[in-house]
Amino acid sequence: MPFRAPVADCQFILDHVVDYAQVSATERFAQAGADTVAAILDEAAKLTDNVLAPVNRNGDTDPARLENGVVVTPKGFAQAYAQLAEGGWMGLSASEEAGGMGLPATVATAVNEMMQSGCLALMLNPLMTQGQIEALEHHASDDLKAIYLPKLISGAWCGTMNLTEPGAGSDVGALRAKAEPLDDGTYAISGQKIFITWGDNDFAENICHLVLARLPDGAAGTKGISLFMVPKYLPQADGTLGAQNDLKVVSLEHKLGIHGSPTCVMEYNAAKGWLVGEKHGGMAAMFTMMNNARLGVGVQGVAMAEAATQKALDYSLERTQGRTSGPTGKIFDHTDVRRMLATMRADTYAARALALACGVALDLGRATGDADWQARAALLIPIAKAFGTDTGHDVAQIGVQVHGGMGYIEETGAAQFARDARITQIYEGTNGIQALDLVGRKLADGGEAAARLLDEIEAFAESVRASHTALAGPLWDAAETLRETTEHLVTLPVGARGAGAVPYLRAFARVLGGYFHLKAAVAEGGSGKRSRLACFYIERLLPEHRALLAAVSAGSATVEALEVGDLEG
Amino acid sequence: MPFRAPVADCQFILDHVVDYAQVSATERFAQAGADTVAAILDEAAKLTDNVLAPVNRNGDTDPARLENGVVVTPKGFAQAYAQLAEGGWMGLSASEEAGGMGLPATVATAVNEMMQSGCLALMLNPLMTQGQIEALEHHASDDLKAIYLPKLISGAWCGTMNLTEPGAGSDVGALRAKAEPLDDGTYAISGQKIFITWGDNDFAENICHLVLARLPDGAAGTKGISLFMVPKYLPQADGTLGAQNDLKVVSLEHKLGIHGSPTCVMEYNAAKGWLVGEKHGGMAAMFTMMNNARLGVGVQGVAMAEAATQKALDYSLERTQGRTSGPTGKIFDHTDVRRMLATMRADTYAARALALACGVALDLGRATGDADWQARAALLIPIAKAFGTDTGHDVAQIGVQVHGGMGYIEETGAAQFARDARITQIYEGTNGIQALDLVGRKLADGGEAAARLLDEIEAFAESVRASHTALAGPLWDAAETLRETTEHLVTLPVGARGAGAVPYLRAFARVLGGYFHLKAAVAEGGSGKRSRLACFYIERLLPEHRALLAAVSAGSATVEALEVGDLEG
Repeated sequence: MPFRAPVADCQFILDHVVDYAQVSATERFAQAGADTVAAILDEAAKLTDNVLAPVNRNGDTDPARLENGVVVTPKGFAQAYAQLAEGGWMGLSASEEAGGMGLPATVATAVNEMMQSGCLALMLNPLMTQGQIEALEHHASDDLKAIYLPKLISGAWCGTMNLTEPGAGSDVGALRAKAEPLDDGTYAISGQKIFITWGDNDFAENICHLVLARLPDGAAGTKGISLFMVPKYLPQADGTLGAQNDLKVVSLEHKLGIHGSPTCVMEYNAAKGWLVGEKHGGMAAMFTMMNNARLGVGVQGVAMAEAATQKALDYSLERTQGRTSGPTGKIFDHTDVRRMLATMRADTYAARALALACGVALDLGRATGDADWQARAALLIPIAKAFGTDTGHDVAQIGVQVHGGMGYIEETGAAQFARDARITQIYEGTNGIQALDLVGRKLADGGEAAARLLDEIEAFAESVRASHTALAGPLWDAAETLRETTEHLVTLPVGARGAGAVPYLRAFARVLGGYFHLKAAVAEGGSGKRSRLACFYIERLLPEHRALLAAVSAGSATVEALEVGDLEG
Repeated sequence: MPFRAPVADCQFILDHVVDYAQVSATERFAQAGADTVAAILDEAAKLTDNVLAPVNRNGDTDPARLENGVVVTPKGFAQAYAQLAEGGWMGLSASEEAGGMGLPATVATAVNEMMQSGCLALMLNPLMTQGQIEALEHHASDDLKAIYLPKLISGAWCGTMNLTEPGAGSDVGALRAKAEPLDDGTYAISGQKIFITWGDNDFAENICHLVLARLPDGAAGTKGISLFMVPKYLPQADGTLGAQNDLKVVSLEHKLGIHGSPTCVMEYNAAKGWLVGEKHGGMAAMFTMMNNARLGVGVQGVAMAEAATQKALDYSLERTQGRTSGPTGKIFDHTDVRRMLATMRADTYAARALALACGVALDLGRATGDADWQARAALLIPIAKAFGTDTGHDVAQIGVQVHGGMGYIEETGAAQFARDARITQIYEGTNGIQALDLVGRKLADGGEAAARLLDEIEAFAESVRASHTALAGPLWDAAETLRETTEHLVTLPVGARGAGAVPYLRAFARVLGGYFHLKAAVAEGGSGKRSRLACFYIERLLPEHRALLAAVSAGSATVEALEVGDLEG
């Protein structure tokens, strides 16, 4: 069966789990009421099911390629992109002043998840543009905004982000790209950038590169980095495009997945650039986007998990193998197959609810300026990124397993989800970096934001303990264990938190998943499908938190004692 | 750095962890003493490092392809194969009477692990031949043995196994291939077989297919299946090759990994075949091989884990990124990177020790006829298969993560190990099937074999509790929890064990890993590298067993209650 965008589940979560109504109750997002959101989700679902999902396999089997210095995109991508642009989807979260829809991050999150399930490789293109729009809105001069924003929002031009260099990945501050001031107030940008997603394409009139580089007087490290707009074609005063800039795509990477998305090595040879934001303020500009971008990537994981879950469920209802005494007569009836499918669905739901909860916190933090909501968003973002993407990959791998031998055959398409998902655990800050952000910066308040969230979870569990004993009890206990571990963790110097970072983040996500499942079960009332899924999650997936938190409590000494020779075998 | 076969670790495990000396103390394996084994491991290591590992990337980048009905193999594969044949490695475990080396399964396991680390895709070829040799030795007529065994053992001919059909995978009994008796005592074999590993190649004189098919009077299901030898070219009375048989390779699969290994769709059109073993006795013949083959596949996982661990460690010692205060100045110093590397090494060790322990039990069961050793081998095989292959894939995926963005680029080679490893969790009985075998057939003795093993583990932990408190205590507790869960599990009807099968198997492997790590630490004496790794394992990986066993104890009701609609989201 073809992909069906999960409108009903998104809607249920918005209405009953993450209380989206709080967002549309603010003045800023008053226009994004329940009816509007429902209509947007329906439109996004149509585009996903009818336009995006049908081109997804093309991207994998006929990767983007470089011909005579220009990227040629997979069959059908240009047409699908044109429909995205026509529908105004590029400006989903751009401000209304700039010509965008001005929608809350929560709604953008739901829409992007669906569309990325349809075709992740293509959707990375508008996602880059959306990030660039956000950066320009916050940091660019009015002149730059006037030139670029309308073109980016209409989809006529595309945007890219140029951070990484061969020696500067997780450590952006190590970059070597240079910016030389020119007499006319612009800059000559030189250097090589790698891993540039959609660094070129054959369907946009112009490609607008936001490039991090160092001015001659820029200090070493992140403090000396500035941000520049470096377009492929130079816009002229009359609004038309002029000469080609001194930049080029040197090569495309041959990757494990997202083959439809050209990952470029870019070379800038004194290319003309315009400063965006303050001199040496490049990192500040990047940080503005980073929270959104990290949530955006987390949602890519949810998207892959959803697509993989649907595909595996469909297969399990088509494939006959072995005796079954169950109702379908297909492999769905085998208990171990159902265990796999339930794990996929329960974790997909948990990751989706987490992403949407994160969106609500972001929106409320912005709309109300409330410091608690801002801290909540900051706390949830690394968890949503890492758990969302780990879930994307893990669930897709379970999907391969459900398919048995057919899962290993590329034509089946099950493996593509796993390959495509795999990059999401790495880019936009590896999941290890997310975990270090969580135990470092995000607990720098002494764990206050975490404690407030755990208060909320425990209070909710307490309030439904009588009616939902089997679910509320284990969740309350898990939240309490997480609280104790958090209280212990914040007493350690940040350096000693390293070995516990990844397990801590995952345990936190497990507890949050339990909270969202319990909320769903309670909202459902009786004992329907959401309650059965919540039972499964709390009985079988939540308990993982114990071993994880034990590892956190064990500290870093055992890990730090290990020497190179110990790991040689 | 190029791959270095893990001779020292294998040797240490044989000497200090799995007590290989018991095997060479038997009359049957008296010739495989310590010096002989050491010499064999050294030779295998040389071939691995110098001949096999260098062609591994070729297989991935230039997959085997079908040209005019013949499989063309990747560059360098034919030459590497010739060296394997020259060295006599095809006959590693074949009996000496038949011209083989007659080595114990334990030694074959160690050798195959190394060589598969070098090039899994190529090594699947001799592995298939080894399986065929074993089947023929046990079941074929003397005439067939005389024709085929010398050619297979010399490597002049290759062997394949033809079980799977489109509608008969895990459920072999559903197969449709037919065998019609001919007047000359041979049979006409017709049908389509899929997923046939190395179904053809361009370097062997003949390809010998063992094919499962049903005789006209064969009952439905597995009881009516017979085994046939169906060679590509028909051997003549004078020993030369005659006409081509009526069989062909229809197509090759396009797979996620092991691209160098041609996975064929085979078509048999009244091809001439010879019965192997009894009529309708095909499954019995398959079962003879199955234990060995399952251990063999488990070891493929260990092989991928070792290769991935070495590669990630090398990278971590080359790559500079971010500030470190550690001794190497490279990303190795980051605690979270070391945590990943330690997980890789600790689990690779555990999976290797498990495979070798399984080999020892197989060998002792055969050499002594002791029912306890036979039961031990039967118990360990599904665990070694599933945990070995899960470890292979999981460890390789951690290796991708250690490489960061570079891990996603195919040229790096890190992703290949994960892609190649992925099939091992599926073929030769999916890991779900292994788990069902464990909780069903392998606990059919009421858990006696498991209890004897747990007695041994607890007694060992008890005996070193004073000197190794921090390790022995948690291991004893874990073994005891596993014992209690096992005692509970065997009271359930087999049908109700399904939802707990996979977690039970993994928990069992976790406890065994703890046992092997403790043994290594004790053998090492003081507080060296093996003790530090054991600490890491017991502190951070062993605790996973608790959540797993809790899931087992929860039973199957929650899973069985799930309906199709619950999993639709």
